[in-house]
Amino acid sequence: MLSKANIKFLKSLQVKKYRKQEQCFTVEGAKSVQELLASDFEVLKVLATDQFMEGHAIRMGVEVITVTESDLANVGEYKSNNAALAVARMKANNPLEIAAGEFALVLDDIHDPGNLGTIIRTADWFGIRKIVASPETADFYNPKVISATMGSFTRVNIYYTVLTEYLQRVRARIFGAFLEGKNVHDVSFGGEGLIVIGSESHGISADVAALITDRVTIPRYGYAESLNAAIATAVICDNIRRVMPPVSDLKVDRF
Amino acid sequence: MLSKANIKFLKSLQVKKYRKQEQCFTVEGAKSVQELLASDFEVLKVLATDQFMEGHAIRMGVEVITVTESDLANVGEYKSNNAALAVARMKANNPLEIAAGEFALVLDDIHDPGNLGTIIRTADWFGIRKIVASPETADFYNPKVISATMGSFTRVNIYYTVLTEYLQRVRARIFGAFLEGKNVHDVSFGGEGLIVIGSESHGISADVAALITDRVTIPRYGYAESLNAAIATAVICDNIRRVMPPVSDLKVDRF
Repeated sequence: MLSKANIKFLKSLQVKKYRKQEQCFTVEGAKSVQELLASDFEVLKVLATDQFMEGHAIRMGVEVITVTESDLANVGEYKSNNAALAVARMKANNPLEIAAGEFALVLDDIHDPGNLGTIIRTADWFGIRKIVASPETADFYNPKVISATMGSFTRVNIYYTVLTEYLQRVRARIFGAFLEGKNVHDVSFGGEGLIVIGSESHGISADVAALITDRVTIPRYGYAESLNAAIATAVICDNIRRVMPPVSDLKVDRF
Repeated sequence: MLSKANIKFLKSLQVKKYRKQEQCFTVEGAKSVQELLASDFEVLKVLATDQFMEGHAIRMGVEVITVTESDLANVGEYKSNNAALAVARMKANNPLEIAAGEFALVLDDIHDPGNLGTIIRTADWFGIRKIVASPETADFYNPKVISATMGSFTRVNIYYTVLTEYLQRVRARIFGAFLEGKNVHDVSFGGEGLIVIGSESHGISADVAALITDRVTIPRYGYAESLNAAIATAVICDNIRRVMPPVSDLKVDRF
């Protein structure tokens, strides 16, 4: 049974200001809650239907509240969620050190939550665990971002910071996706570096562009003027990884 | 000035049933309306702000109505549209013949309008002009689809049909995106064929899977369970096209 105080608290977490104040966020849907429970996130509450409870072990120390499907629809962003909703503690916005032999993404004002979520999911597929994002990039903990990651929010870390300051200190190659650059099919990416993706409407900003060491472009075979930011990310990642063995051939501790 | 009858008519076009009845759809935003006016679609009405009118020539025979930004927000799907909204005639759902030397996409129940729009935009970038879609795929003329195509709806044609019947008559290779298939980096796609993309939640349906001649997979380097449908489309298209010269090297009449 959901108390009025709980309902108010849960609904407040749909708003960035209150998420920040409480340092908490919500995770919705069976798959995402399952991934959360298997991750290193601190989980505070799980609201679950009887059916979800039957199939899942919930960690010790987590407040568990049995709810109906209409309770879930009422407090969450997704009306179609018929299984579970969890509240977890945000991670601190700590600087991410990029190790030798590692690729990371840099997002310059990706505003759309769906795009950010899809980029996180795509990064996870291609074995990229770290994202550095401008302060104007959508909030990682927005329910729409969390949902679009399809669970990958548990495996990819983000660090929000002023990109020019961050990139000035980087010694690795900084690749940037531009409409005019070297054909991505012909670029030797080597084994490490940063990949900068620009905003949906303005591309990479001038200040950040000045710090790019390698401009790359996805060749065009038709007439669209540009590609969606998440699409461009995926094509570049596939081109980076194609010279490497896929995960089934790697030792698991590689990641 | 917008009449009450016009407001009612325009709002009705947000609903598939009324679009079908009227055989009309709406296009919103400066860039999309511009692309529409430059295309072979029959345009019936253009609602535009004074500012949009100043910069654009509207074709003869089109009813032009000067409106305010709040009029546009009122009748359209997008509250941020501050330029123009047009009404155009749908094209007939004619069978698409795939020519020799051509690739086309086949969509098996892509339900999400944003995904469909992004797939259309991506197809256009990679020089793919034809899409065959299952009846359950999102409606091409949904305002969210049109918006996500970023104008590419004017260059890519769609044909809705029962996929098994359609594919049974095809003589070309039929590639399908599966989690278990031949590594897309190692596939020789040749110069023509169909690429089948499955639904966001269930992949390619069993009936359609039985007709696939070549199962391909995008190798995974991390831990996400799957890729977004539009992302998978893009990576496969980039792998198909990488052996061909990009559009700047092609004669324009190639497309």
